[in-house]
Amino acid sequence: MTAKKMILAADALLTMDAANSVLRGGAVLVEDGRIGAVGTAAELAAANPGVETRVLNGTVLMPGLVNAHVHSGFLRGTAEHLPVWDWLTQHINPMHRVLQPHEAEVASQLCYAESLLGGTTTVVDMWRFMDGSAKAAEAIGNRLVAVPYVGEHPDYNYFDTLDMNEAMIEAWHRKADGRINVWVGLEHPFYSDDAGHRRAIEMAKRHDTGFHTHCSEARIEVDGFVKRYGKRPMHVLDDIGFFEAPLTMIAHGVWLDPGEIELVAGKRVSVAHNPVSNMKLASGIANVREMLDAGVPVGIGTDGEKENNNFDMFEEMKVASLLGKLRYDTVQPLDSWEVLRMGTILGARAIGLDHEIGSIEPGKRADIIAVRADTPRMTPFFADGPYFNLHHNIVHAVRGGDVALTMVDGEVLVENGVLKTADVSAIIAEIHKVAPGLFARRAAFLAQNQGDMVQWTTSN
Amino acid sequence: MTAKKMILAADALLTMDAANSVLRGGAVLVEDGRIGAVGTAAELAAANPGVETRVLNGTVLMPGLVNAHVHSGFLRGTAEHLPVWDWLTQHINPMHRVLQPHEAEVASQLCYAESLLGGTTTVVDMWRFMDGSAKAAEAIGNRLVAVPYVGEHPDYNYFDTLDMNEAMIEAWHRKADGRINVWVGLEHPFYSDDAGHRRAIEMAKRHDTGFHTHCSEARIEVDGFVKRYGKRPMHVLDDIGFFEAPLTMIAHGVWLDPGEIELVAGKRVSVAHNPVSNMKLASGIANVREMLDAGVPVGIGTDGEKENNNFDMFEEMKVASLLGKLRYDTVQPLDSWEVLRMGTILGARAIGLDHEIGSIEPGKRADIIAVRADTPRMTPFFADGPYFNLHHNIVHAVRGGDVALTMVDGEVLVENGVLKTADVSAIIAEIHKVAPGLFARRAAFLAQNQGDMVQWTTSN
Repeated sequence: MTAKKMILAADALLTMDAANSVLRGGAVLVEDGRIGAVGTAAELAAANPGVETRVLNGTVLMPGLVNAHVHSGFLRGTAEHLPVWDWLTQHINPMHRVLQPHEAEVASQLCYAESLLGGTTTVVDMWRFMDGSAKAAEAIGNRLVAVPYVGEHPDYNYFDTLDMNEAMIEAWHRKADGRINVWVGLEHPFYSDDAGHRRAIEMAKRHDTGFHTHCSEARIEVDGFVKRYGKRPMHVLDDIGFFEAPLTMIAHGVWLDPGEIELVAGKRVSVAHNPVSNMKLASGIANVREMLDAGVPVGIGTDGEKENNNFDMFEEMKVASLLGKLRYDTVQPLDSWEVLRMGTILGARAIGLDHEIGSIEPGKRADIIAVRADTPRMTPFFADGPYFNLHHNIVHAVRGGDVALTMVDGEVLVENGVLKTADVSAIIAEIHKVAPGLFARRAAFLAQNQGDMVQWTTSN
Repeated sequence: MTAKKMILAADALLTMDAANSVLRGGAVLVEDGRIGAVGTAAELAAANPGVETRVLNGTVLMPGLVNAHVHSGFLRGTAEHLPVWDWLTQHINPMHRVLQPHEAEVASQLCYAESLLGGTTTVVDMWRFMDGSAKAAEAIGNRLVAVPYVGEHPDYNYFDTLDMNEAMIEAWHRKADGRINVWVGLEHPFYSDDAGHRRAIEMAKRHDTGFHTHCSEARIEVDGFVKRYGKRPMHVLDDIGFFEAPLTMIAHGVWLDPGEIELVAGKRVSVAHNPVSNMKLASGIANVREMLDAGVPVGIGTDGEKENNNFDMFEEMKVASLLGKLRYDTVQPLDSWEVLRMGTILGARAIGLDHEIGSIEPGKRADIIAVRADTPRMTPFFADGPYFNLHHNIVHAVRGGDVALTMVDGEVLVENGVLKTADVSAIIAEIHKVAPGLFARRAAFLAQNQGDMVQWTTSN
């Protein structure tokens, strides 16, 4: 298995271990897809004679980023500046009604390619027809948590069904050497009837997998829960039994109040924080500080291409930092280390994979990226000493385009801006080939069904 | 002069003219540093036989971005997570006390290199010892508005003086074929006595140039003005005579109230909006919508390397858009076109250069950039038709690293990520050579003078 051994060496190694250890001149031994050892290049070379050392001058090694909430798609920039109601009825829901499996698969190819090029190694994707998404991840090489967009209610019969979700679990959960996981998904608690709620949780427990749903994104949602159930969302989800799943991740959680945070902190519940989306859709500012203090694992997500409009997790970490400072009217609420942990090891914990990924420690999967530190925006660069600034600038200065190398499970997938496992130009060309058809079918549907769609804000 | 003629052609041309015209397959004729004509590549080639056409496939041509407020520097990431008082006293002011001209010059080289690489062609830099900054801009090729950091008060005798400022104007104003302009600067109105205020304005008038100062950035500043003068800041500045300058640009202007906005809208006053800095320092959210509605020219600035920590004006436009939506609790306050105008033509107007730059129109200076549109984050790409999404994605998806070409005054300065007019590695190496000395002198100063520094919040 010597051929599968490799030493990566760089100017510094950001481990994101429990002590946030940084090794100046650090290196990592990659062995059969896992991290064999961490040390200096000289130490690792001496201990592993004959193993090739790849010296990545001018870069910093760090764990691949975990995007805790994204949707594949290709509406980017075509569904903008609309209030959420018009946005859903004019663009998003009718798109889901007419989407076809091949289109969904190409959308995932595009999403995973962009993610890897920008240093995101793990993608939690809520999307439709995810057999294609799994095939895309299998081929392109990213780590995937596939979460089908399920609607289990007569008003939302144009999403995936729980039957489709279960078939996905059976076909793909823990496949590709564990790189692909499949969870149980639900677009929103209101997109399912009671029987669907019960079945979703039972399915997550039976397959020992996670459950993911949007909740408490917009303020009006809280009113909707109170009107229907007389309680705020997290208390309703608790009553429904959602927190009996092995792990439940809430997307957004913007409006969780102290009582809800206390409730979820005692359960197997995590939150995917989406700062850019929350600003762009004017959803509000999540109480991230309080959630972290209560021990809730908070990961960071970009949300979809239509809500962001890119999947740059470095940008997302920066906006998380900025939004935290603005929220609390002081510069101190989220230290750069905490933001970095949310993008790596805490994000991994939020999806139940912190035993495998999220830090560079022996025994873990080799999901590693190299970030350029030899750029103007990283100057000056101090990897140790009293002016140590690596963590601050990784969060606030670096962009996804600064990623020089992306490795997942020990495989080098991106090198010098080039994705080695797929033809990005061909994916882009295919998107441009299929997009007009999707838009035309959506327009035709809308022309025939104007005003025929319900939303949970008006139904109950 | 044929050798100085060139046609640039791309997939689309974003003119940022009054109608926000976009030409699919657009091209521009560059002639002696200016824009000779705009049209299709075929039209321009036919009208200009023998002129070379450079086809930039997969890109969009647009005006170079105008960074309306920046500080050169190299404290990046070393002065973080501190309340503004500690930040100023521990890091910023003592740095200004010990800064030396050579260090200041290298800092400007770094700033202008980063700016050009990211598509910013015009930099409004408030900095010290700006003879070096002007030399840097002259050599590197960016357009510069040099604004000396002036303190004209016994408590702030460690900034530049008005004498130095006037010498800078005499040496550099309208030099380098007009690429370099010098304004009158003042760190803050409180950093000068009354005589200094009068002289600054008189100097701006006499040299027919602009005046730039920080004001109304933090809420406590408003209290400081009310305590000293019994009025809010803009009314005080009006009384002092600041708005008699040919053009006065206020950096930040976060706390301008409706009365102040009405006041400045009737004067020759503009505002540099710095959304990332305002979030990072927890300064607040400026009333940009109201300022634009009142007709105040609002440009966008990154602020300094220590407040941001990069100079990516694409990121800054995105955050301006996001912050606007969050501020007004709705998705509609700042349309992508308005944000793009703030980053280009309105920013040019904010610095009094809209007759020369800020849009791609015949007769203007050829400050042009090409942005890659063939990336996953720009897919799908519609340059016309019902799904036109170019403006939304230039604001929300593109990053500075996507800039394929940067031209100022008709000179190609950056091509495929490479700055042609300076050795970026050498600049970075020089920063690393000089930074330890600056930090050591600052530490020595602080050791000898702990507690010896006053701030305007306590003095009067």
